[in-house]
Amino acid sequence: MSDTKILLDENEIPTHWYNVIADMPNPPAAVLGPDGNPVTPDALTAIFPMSVVEQEVSTERWIPIPEKVREIYRLWRPSPLYRARRLEEALGTPAKIYYKNEGVSPAGSHKPNSAIAQAFYNKEAGINRLVTETGAGQWGSSLALAGQMFNMEVRIYMVKVSYDQKPFRRSMMQTWGAEVFPSPTDMTESGRKALATDPDNPGSLGIAISEAVEEAASRKDTNYALGSVLNHVILHQTVIGLEAKKQFEKAGDYPDMIFAPCGGGSNFAGVAFPFLADKAAGKDISLVAVEPASCPTLTRGHYAYDFGDSVGLTPLMKMYTLGHDFMPPGIHAGGLRYHGDNVLVSQLYDEGIIDAIAVPQLATFEAGVQFARTEGIIPAPESNHAIRACIDEALRCKESGEAKTLFFNLSGHGHFDMASYDKYFSGDLEDYEYPEAAIHEALDHLPKVR
Amino acid sequence: MSDTKILLDENEIPTHWYNVIADMPNPPAAVLGPDGNPVTPDALTAIFPMSVVEQEVSTERWIPIPEKVREIYRLWRPSPLYRARRLEEALGTPAKIYYKNEGVSPAGSHKPNSAIAQAFYNKEAGINRLVTETGAGQWGSSLALAGQMFNMEVRIYMVKVSYDQKPFRRSMMQTWGAEVFPSPTDMTESGRKALATDPDNPGSLGIAISEAVEEAASRKDTNYALGSVLNHVILHQTVIGLEAKKQFEKAGDYPDMIFAPCGGGSNFAGVAFPFLADKAAGKDISLVAVEPASCPTLTRGHYAYDFGDSVGLTPLMKMYTLGHDFMPPGIHAGGLRYHGDNVLVSQLYDEGIIDAIAVPQLATFEAGVQFARTEGIIPAPESNHAIRACIDEALRCKESGEAKTLFFNLSGHGHFDMASYDKYFSGDLEDYEYPEAAIHEALDHLPKVR
Repeated sequence: MSDTKILLDENEIPTHWYNVIADMPNPPAAVLGPDGNPVTPDALTAIFPMSVVEQEVSTERWIPIPEKVREIYRLWRPSPLYRARRLEEALGTPAKIYYKNEGVSPAGSHKPNSAIAQAFYNKEAGINRLVTETGAGQWGSSLALAGQMFNMEVRIYMVKVSYDQKPFRRSMMQTWGAEVFPSPTDMTESGRKALATDPDNPGSLGIAISEAVEEAASRKDTNYALGSVLNHVILHQTVIGLEAKKQFEKAGDYPDMIFAPCGGGSNFAGVAFPFLADKAAGKDISLVAVEPASCPTLTRGHYAYDFGDSVGLTPLMKMYTLGHDFMPPGIHAGGLRYHGDNVLVSQLYDEGIIDAIAVPQLATFEAGVQFARTEGIIPAPESNHAIRACIDEALRCKESGEAKTLFFNLSGHGHFDMASYDKYFSGDLEDYEYPEAAIHEALDHLPKVR
Repeated sequence: MSDTKILLDENEIPTHWYNVIADMPNPPAAVLGPDGNPVTPDALTAIFPMSVVEQEVSTERWIPIPEKVREIYRLWRPSPLYRARRLEEALGTPAKIYYKNEGVSPAGSHKPNSAIAQAFYNKEAGINRLVTETGAGQWGSSLALAGQMFNMEVRIYMVKVSYDQKPFRRSMMQTWGAEVFPSPTDMTESGRKALATDPDNPGSLGIAISEAVEEAASRKDTNYALGSVLNHVILHQTVIGLEAKKQFEKAGDYPDMIFAPCGGGSNFAGVAFPFLADKAAGKDISLVAVEPASCPTLTRGHYAYDFGDSVGLTPLMKMYTLGHDFMPPGIHAGGLRYHGDNVLVSQLYDEGIIDAIAVPQLATFEAGVQFARTEGIIPAPESNHAIRACIDEALRCKESGEAKTLFFNLSGHGHFDMASYDKYFSGDLEDYEYPEAAIHEALDHLPKVR
């Protein structure tokens, strides 16, 4: 039996991140201010350090990874690339299945790849306090970890429904020294406004972002850090795909299709964009963003300018969106419930360069359990979306007899999501198709942009 | 900065386990039956396959690891050896600190090293159903995983207090397809007896073992699997120390002292025994078993023959014991609450070849948090015992100026123990010194053996 894991040495951690903008056929749609004019970098420095703002708009293909960031990456990177031999066998497919395991980070997901970088750049800029939001808890944990690594204070607004459902994610953030509050809180205007409308507001990522951004904008000693959606976050995550390319080279293989869960886009882009460079150079490869049927931003949303938060504090970004006041259905487990998508992911999808599919919830858990029972690792519900799509493709290969090479990103483990698995086993989870009427209605809520 | 992790290739997974009996100065004390005579291997085959019974008594130094076991080991082994540079820096110690991370297994601890082997040997012997007990849940998860890997049924008696405190460990076992019941149950004589004395019995490892052994002994299609204490379990765990030796060789270093948490002994023996071979050959190395002050078997128990379970169903083993009817205090978090210790660990301790210390609970959590805040990984409460002892030694080195090489086994991660961390942060955990009177009283409960 040949290797199960394809490992890299620490010295093979990439020295540069990959910026897909350099290989896009068209420049990215401008980010607009409230006046409808493109936002200047200066406007963003109220909440971000200049080095991060520069990354947000850079057109350089390669951006160096600071040595201090690589030093922290060494605590878990390079992450292993697995050949899922036991899963292949169980499916009886001629397809080869590979997955990259980002669950090996201390926070249990790919999120620290950007959290560490953002903490570093803020620290370097003299900022010692960061504020952010978290939904399922993956990003909050990662920023708590990152803040601790650079000796910074971290405050986290955690979507209330997750705060209640996932107390151990909160304990994890506290172990790394962060403050955690259930959002909406009465500590910000945005939070108070949400509570005024509905005192039992379960919270949403959009509201929590508004709270965090508001606090960061109002305090000179505090910056904001975002876990997805923005270009610099996408950039930091490309360390995943860059490692994977080296690992495929070692394995003497190359993927025909890549699957990754897609919420705000950082996970998908992180693994897929480095391969897009090859696609731009003529390579035949499909890059598939997998989203939940209950939050089908790419597959059913509007491609339009919208706010990044629910209140309308952020600049306007051109993206696939369900409307910035989108309230995710409470029945959905895990993350991937953001109303929009990264600008670059959206544009590449609009141009037909990347693909997207939406999968229903129950089928994702079924796939996750099958994965756990063959490969051992219990995946995060977000990762189950990619596993579902990959298994479906492997089963199509079984019918057609094609020996495709399939690759998905196991974005994290499910150790803090066992309550969702419990609900799945006890029949308490449901499928939820986002209603057509709500998608139509969202059109009226989109900000007017000439 | 040089390497943080010392990795091995999958082909470097050991091909043989190491049997310390071959290097012990005296043969191990015999295991006795109820009649006071040594137990014959045949008597054990009611609940164990013959291949496992043979390992229990083998005097061969090297026992081959079956290829099918190594194949499953590849899903996470070899586990990384870390140099804890950030912890060293935080302590300001001249000591070098290394740790082996066994938390990378799908079940999150070292336990699958033996669970996989035991499932394999049972399957090979035609057994398709296994039964066991679990306390903190590490072993139960591991056997659930192992059973699933070999397509076997698994039933788990989980100590009731842990079943209630750790619902997500239960979900994890169910994800891998196992049945889980809170012990004591009304499904066995042993369970009913415990419930008759106290209907609110919180359970103990001893009672749960009695229940599992009773069921295995009464069903021909079912065998029993134990997660620690017995020699074959110890044997399977030596894969840890054997890998570590190769990794230290790669690092060009060698430990002066090794620390490992010690409950039944499999973790400690697994990492330390392969180094004991060098010690037997004259090498100067300290092997330190670290136990909780609330369950101080080695440091304060009696070295005497005692039962392995609480009811008295098992043969008698000569070991350090607090009495087989020992009830662990409920205030203690995590595992390491077994009343006895493995026969070989006990004998080597009695002969002064290995060392042991007991540490109080609060100090272990303090050490675990310091570790999480420097190295990132949140450790299991059991592992925190070794971390405490190692940090204390590193601080002694700071005073003396000695640049010792210290090594501990990070037996598992704490993702399913965040409730304990919560209690620690909120001041709800206490130190508990096992009372002298109870230790004295235990003498009266020890079985009489000539």
